[in-house]
Amino acid sequence: MSDLMYSDISEIKNIKIFGRLGKQRQPLPLLFNGSGIEVVVTGSDLWIDLETDSDFHEMWVAYEINGAFMGRQMLLPGEYRICLFRNMEPSTPKRVRFYRELQAMGDDRCKLLVKGLEISDNGCFMEVPKYERKIEFIGDSITSGEGSYGAFEDVDWLAMYMSASVNYATMTAKELEADYHLISQGGWGVCCGWDNDPRHNLPSIYERVCGFSEGPSNEALGCQDPYDFESWQPDVVVVNLGTNDITSFSQPPFFNPDDGKTYKMRKNDDGSLNREDELKVEEAIINFLTMIRKHNPKAHIAWCYGMLFCDLNMTITEAMSTYREKTGDTNISFFQLPDTTQETYGSHMHPGRKSHENGSKALVQYLRTIMNW
Amino acid sequence: MSDLMYSDISEIKNIKIFGRLGKQRQPLPLLFNGSGIEVVVTGSDLWIDLETDSDFHEMWVAYEINGAFMGRQMLLPGEYRICLFRNMEPSTPKRVRFYRELQAMGDDRCKLLVKGLEISDNGCFMEVPKYERKIEFIGDSITSGEGSYGAFEDVDWLAMYMSASVNYATMTAKELEADYHLISQGGWGVCCGWDNDPRHNLPSIYERVCGFSEGPSNEALGCQDPYDFESWQPDVVVVNLGTNDITSFSQPPFFNPDDGKTYKMRKNDDGSLNREDELKVEEAIINFLTMIRKHNPKAHIAWCYGMLFCDLNMTITEAMSTYREKTGDTNISFFQLPDTTQETYGSHMHPGRKSHENGSKALVQYLRTIMNW
Amino acid sequence: MSDLMYSDISEIKNIKIFGRLGKQRQPLPLLFNGSGIEVVVTGSDLWIDLETDSDFHEMWVAYEINGAFMGRQMLLPGEYRICLFRNMEPSTPKRVRFYRELQAMGDDRCKLLVKGLEISDNGCFMEVPKYERKIEFIGDSITSGEGSYGAFEDVDWLAMYMSASVNYATMTAKELEADYHLISQGGWGVCCGWDNDPRHNLPSIYERVCGFSEGPSNEALGCQDPYDFESWQPDVVVVNLGTNDITSFSQPPFFNPDDGKTYKMRKNDDGSLNREDELKVEEAIINFLTMIRKHNPKAHIAWCYGMLFCDLNMTITEAMSTYREKTGDTNISFFQLPDTTQETYGSHMHPGRKSHENGSKALVQYLRTIMNW
Amino acid sequence: MSDLMYSDISEIKNIKIFGRLGKQRQPLPLLFNGSGIEVVVTGSDLWIDLETDSDFHEMWVAYEINGAFMGRQMLLPGEYRICLFRNMEPSTPKRVRFYRELQAMGDDRCKLLVKGLEISDNGCFMEVPKYERKIEFIGDSITSGEGSYGAFEDVDWLAMYMSASVNYATMTAKELEADYHLISQGGWGVCCGWDNDPRHNLPSIYERVCGFSEGPSNEALGCQDPYDFESWQPDVVVVNLGTNDITSFSQPPFFNPDDGKTYKMRKNDDGSLNREDELKVEEAIINFLTMIRKHNPKAHIAWCYGMLFCDLNMTITEAMSTYREKTGDTNISFFQLPDTTQETYGSHMHPGRKSHENGSKALVQYLRTIMNW
Repeated sequence: MSDLMYSDISEIKNIKIFGRLGKQRQPLPLLFNGSGIEVVVTGSDLWIDLETDSDFHEMWVAYEINGAFMGRQMLLPGEYRICLFRNMEPSTPKRVRFYRELQAMGDDRCKLLVKGLEISDNGCFMEVPKYERKIEFIGDSITSGEGSYGAFEDVDWLAMYMSASVNYATMTAKELEADYHLISQGGWGVCCGWDNDPRHNLPSIYERVCGFSEGPSNEALGCQDPYDFESWQPDVVVVNLGTNDITSFSQPPFFNPDDGKTYKMRKNDDGSLNREDELKVEEAIINFLTMIRKHNPKAHIAWCYGMLFCDLNMTITEAMSTYREKTGDTNISFFQLPDTTQETYGSHMHPGRKSHENGSKALVQYLRTIMNW
Repeated sequence: MSDLMYSDISEIKNIKIFGRLGKQRQPLPLLFNGSGIEVVVTGSDLWIDLETDSDFHEMWVAYEINGAFMGRQMLLPGEYRICLFRNMEPSTPKRVRFYRELQAMGDDRCKLLVKGLEISDNGCFMEVPKYERKIEFIGDSITSGEGSYGAFEDVDWLAMYMSASVNYATMTAKELEADYHLISQGGWGVCCGWDNDPRHNLPSIYERVCGFSEGPSNEALGCQDPYDFESWQPDVVVVNLGTNDITSFSQPPFFNPDDGKTYKMRKNDDGSLNREDELKVEEAIINFLTMIRKHNPKAHIAWCYGMLFCDLNMTITEAMSTYREKTGDTNISFFQLPDTTQETYGSHMHPGRKSHENGSKALVQYLRTIMNW
Repeated sequence: MSDLMYSDISEIKNIKIFGRLGKQRQPLPLLFNGSGIEVVVTGSDLWIDLETDSDFHEMWVAYEINGAFMGRQMLLPGEYRICLFRNMEPSTPKRVRFYRELQAMGDDRCKLLVKGLEISDNGCFMEVPKYERKIEFIGDSITSGEGSYGAFEDVDWLAMYMSASVNYATMTAKELEADYHLISQGGWGVCCGWDNDPRHNLPSIYERVCGFSEGPSNEALGCQDPYDFESWQPDVVVVNLGTNDITSFSQPPFFNPDDGKTYKMRKNDDGSLNREDELKVEEAIINFLTMIRKHNPKAHIAWCYGMLFCDLNMTITEAMSTYREKTGDTNISFFQLPDTTQETYGSHMHPGRKSHENGSKALVQYLRTIMNW
Repeated sequence: MSDLMYSDISEIKNIKIFGRLGKQRQPLPLLFNGSGIEVVVTGSDLWIDLETDSDFHEMWVAYEINGAFMGRQMLLPGEYRICLFRNMEPSTPKRVRFYRELQAMGDDRCKLLVKGLEISDNGCFMEVPKYERKIEFIGDSITSGEGSYGAFEDVDWLAMYMSASVNYATMTAKELEADYHLISQGGWGVCCGWDNDPRHNLPSIYERVCGFSEGPSNEALGCQDPYDFESWQPDVVVVNLGTNDITSFSQPPFFNPDDGKTYKMRKNDDGSLNREDELKVEEAIINFLTMIRKHNPKAHIAWCYGMLFCDLNMTITEAMSTYREKTGDTNISFFQLPDTTQETYGSHMHPGRKSHENGSKALVQYLRTIMNW
């Protein structure tokens, strides 16, 4: 076996980083599920040097070689040297991706930092083929891969059930050979959370690097800094939101300690949505579209929704129409994703592997058509 | 073999008739694809007595026993006695459905009339189990089953490629054990035809028994009579229209000989829809929803669209929102059907069997949820 | 519409005939399921002129255009002119196959005779592309397509449930672009019938044109004549037999009126096969292989078995080994077909469409490999 | 979080151990892929304490919760405490299985030892539901899960591509709720290895605990001790061997340093197997069946073969017939597994996930039928 040579992650030129970046590059924080690094290396061995911290919800990571899933594991707080492969044929280039499985977390302690890579001295970093397409996915638990791991009967809300490895967004990006960003949070909506919590809306954090992640330590990483949208302009923004907004209409009121008010989305007696509350969702959608457009002037914005039923279709599309009418922006579209069925659930009534595969298959065909890809 | 006993179709009490009916019941005209009769019989043999006429586009029929497809054939003009089964175990009840494969046709000569049934003297007509659910499907070539038969490379526009036997609407009704009506016409839209012909819009014929079918002979059958909506009130109206409307935006202008005017739906230079023309489609949708609601006050109206791409989503839903806002009618919904893929095409770029199966599977799950079925 | 020109079937040079042929060519008898004619024609219209007779079990036929199933119907005794297509684009060549759905029948009256074709005067018969591969299928009810039509609960033994249209043999031949012969009979085995009837073994009829079909009328067609094997030498002989032989071990004794003896394949107390009776099956296999080899000296013989469980595997392969050892003939192989499952049954516990598709998919891959196709 | 309590693995009564066991129970060696431990625990947290060693080929492990795959990772030489879950709802019982992914290895250093489990003090070990069925799988690289991980283009022979997690044997055992043993080795046959190495035959090691694993350290674990067959009597022994034996006929001669002789299985000029060499394979099969029967007097022995083509069918079944004839043992059967297709390959031309799923589906149906399960 040959010796290993360590490089700081910031020193490696031939590297592809997935996911939104903040100001800190050394060690490199992986902030979202799907955030990761990719290298193409020769040489027999490759190691990655990491540091993690967490509290209740521990970190999970996964990695793949030449596009094929290889490992997935929990990383409790500490420093790690993980071997990504060893004893491979040195002269053959190996494409390796290492990425975060766990969604961005609010917890200040929760973090995953990549310090560097160690490569055997018979190898080197080769150029990573450029991804010609770029997709940003904005979503909720579905995009966080919640329930993509775990047994049907598992109902705990735990880090280990989330993933980027079994996830329609990752599958779609891979099939389309696209670079991608995931910005998602379980339980959040475009207007409010599943439990009527008005603070849990994606737009409120979209403009910061990783607005979900609060606290001094996350701030030090730049999570709360304004995000530099110009640094990465996607061809398409896929918004998969609405599932929690519609749920809030059937949930008890929420008392918001921040303002001392109680919040509740209401239904009419006939089961239809209270119009006033529905319009709140629509206003949130309109404002969010405006915000996305502001930062992504050329991107096609596709609202892609429906993996856990599609009962907000009328509301979402009405808001989109209002937005279009108001702004004249026609570079938006609505696409319904295939629903999850009894056969395709993962754990705690979320999409499982088969559902994510179905969603990705439909979305890939849609994007190929609408984008002329 | 036992002797056969003939009964006029109008004399048979234990019979279920599928599809819209006009004033004439003897012989019984089957006006649409999917229109047919169903009986549950004992006895060893069953025959059906028919009369057909046609010109360029000949009649096609199919039949099934106990829910399983058995035969499909062309019927050129003439009188027919067709054996639906023979030598079956006499005491076992057999459920038999005989139905039209060909969509309603404009041609005055084109007709299919059921005169009666002949049953062997060891058998009788038993009660047909009642269908507890009722669905009306309104559509275009997709609902007419165009291309559901034929090879991928076949491009002629011919009767033989259409069907009710390989058709998402039939599959859906069967899976849900529902009675159903099909009102559809290839090439027609909600606003205009694929070729910009403004006369080819479904609303223009919806209120007549079978408004597609013109000429003195069809009039004699009652096709142009006002349809008696009260005679059959569906639980759901599925509208699968839009595919031809969107196509008209990419087609040459159409000169309408009826009014000497030229019609053309326009696109903007950036490929988006000319707003004025888009609003024409929306107005047609709004008016059609109003018309459907008028005649089906309690039905859920589900606009189900997308089997040949979904680029009219924004237009359809905007119109639906306007309708909803204007009328307060919330008993409507939008559902996107799965797109046809390279693997699921039938002939002349229309959905094949696998695409109809996929469409039906999604629609069944949707209707079960939205209707609490 | 153009005029039709009639040609005797024997006068058409550009025609492909499927299935074994006897001495009579005008009118042409179609003796087996899958037996049929194929032409490639220009012109707008094509008709076929037929004559059929039958008694209890009536004739069924099907036809396809450009490889796609188009129609299937019962033909009671009489003369027929059936339109295979009309009003098609005249200059485009259309490949049309018309074939028998019903297996060869013992009944003397049962027959299907093709008299000729009528083609519109704007068309002509073009050369039918030559099939480079040839497969002979020898089988029982599975190869007769029994149960390939009909509902799961249908249990009558009727002509309408059999087919060549939904049949692994046809699917395999089409996928491999092969000419094929089907020689099969429901209930028959290689040694005896499912009910222990020793007369119902395929080898007893294999050397005659269509030995199943007895009586003066069938004899007049040449059914009982020695078959001219040299006229059609297959590349592969697929033998799908054994399902009835194994069944006979669990059935009551059979009294054979022909010799006044009683026949019964026996099981041991532990459920294993009585060795003496098993060896009878093996002897029949050995003799049949010898007979097949005699008439098809260069063909690969593949015993392909298992679509209705595979409990005769050990017996079949033991016999094949004995045959191989005895003769030195190594150009044989054993291939197990995928079993039918609860989801893939057709009617009366026989393979349905999905099972035939699965069987064909496996067989196609097998033949491609073993034949270097 | 509650405190953790450590128990030696040998002290835990409520534990299910998968895979063959030798004399050492503390720490417990997991000798084969699929070898593992299963517990049902309450409490919020569970950890496992391990020790591993290896040289070129490192250890891989995987684990699952409530039957669902959760993690998979490489374990380089060292001591480990791995958290299997944390912060779960304490009162709900969790079924956890931890198992070895890597096949048994010849290398003396390669080992995986389970020292104990740590459970949070709010939990306890509950009874593991008894597996009523027992299956022993004997195989080669297919049963070692070679290529079940990795990209299609990966061709290195590495530990990371093998698994019990994506493996027809594991899938079959789980679907049938069966306990199971795996005894397999990539490249080995029933008679000789793929490269004609006569030492690489399964029978040579079958009677020792884990005969593959040599060297003083493995001997100390009891690997070379006679296996106590009475300790675990399977209901079925599935033998999936033959793929390497047939390959040896197409490979260059092998010089065996142990006896200084050269070995080569030969083909005849016409491509058939040299009879003398084929009979060597058959003799090996006969002897192996005799050996298996000796140690498993009541088990059904099913030779299940064909996931990488089935060209040894005739040879295997001939040997089985000879064995049956010689011994009168009828409690054996031959079952062909579905072949791997272009769509179902994993890495280096071995079965991928889909192929293992297909194989398992067929095998489950077969075992249900033959075993009356």
